[in-house]
Amino acid sequence: MVDILHRIGVRTSSPQQVYEALTTVDGLAGWWTDDTRGRGEVGGVLEFRFPPGGFDMEVVEARPSERVAWRVVDGPEEWLGTTIDWELRQDDDYTIVLFRHAGWREPVEFMSHCSTKWGTFLLSLKALVETGEGSPSPRDVQISDWH
Amino acid sequence: MVDILHRIGVRTSSPQQVYEALTTVDGLAGWWTDDTRGRGEVGGVLEFRFPPGGFDMEVVEARPSERVAWRVVDGPEEWLGTTIDWELRQDDDYTIVLFRHAGWREPVEFMSHCSTKWGTFLLSLKALVETGEGSPSPRDVQISDWH
Repeated sequence: MVDILHRIGVRTSSPQQVYEALTTVDGLAGWWTDDTRGRGEVGGVLEFRFPPGGFDMEVVEARPSERVAWRVVDGPEEWLGTTIDWELRQDDDYTIVLFRHAGWREPVEFMSHCSTKWGTFLLSLKALVETGEGSPSPRDVQISDWH
Repeated sequence: MVDILHRIGVRTSSPQQVYEALTTVDGLAGWWTDDTRGRGEVGGVLEFRFPPGGFDMEVVEARPSERVAWRVVDGPEEWLGTTIDWELRQDDDYTIVLFRHAGWREPVEFMSHCSTKWGTFLLSLKALVETGEGSPSPRDVQISDWH
């Protein structure tokens, strides 16, 4: 089992805005993909769609300002059954976001792509909270022939 | 043992420019840090310096347009003995870069930070080759309180 890990710090006075950006359809649409639907509460399913396809995530944990966790219930075969979790904490002027996409069966090339792409979306989340404007799909950063 | 993985595609007609950006002091200074010294040939040591510190890498492999590998011989304790390798191949109009920073002993928070930071530097490498201008330190993308 191998994981994708990332860490960013969002300049803001409390984790509340980051938490909302991870648990509301409007927030998620502001940094990941315009085409986000569903429910961000525990037990809800969030549907994220991109030009080439999408992911359905079951929300398995949502502790305000502390932790959000999803399980992938539909999407590319490599993602099925993997989990994505977000740990939040406040360090002075920054909300620290620890991201983990865990449970990949093999370190396939698609995983390397997703690792880089997650990094760009985390910076989109940071920009959304700090400036009010992220870069969600379809205006996301293009990193390769795989977009 | 856990690894940091990334994948980018650089829009260019051959891997030659990416290879040069990984094996020459001028190339490396164009996307990672202005303050780069040393020798990029096998057996050489490359010295990368940043405001908070730096890394010394021994070049262990340099196969033109195919593969570059470094071993960390000086730097933060977590990096010592880890390896960084770059696989290159041409897919149509893109040089695909598969990056791996391997041999981390534990998935510490600093590893998560380095994962995100490596992603931004890979995009700096892509920009350097595609546009002639990267974002090396000290003009690098700031991702958190850890810079």
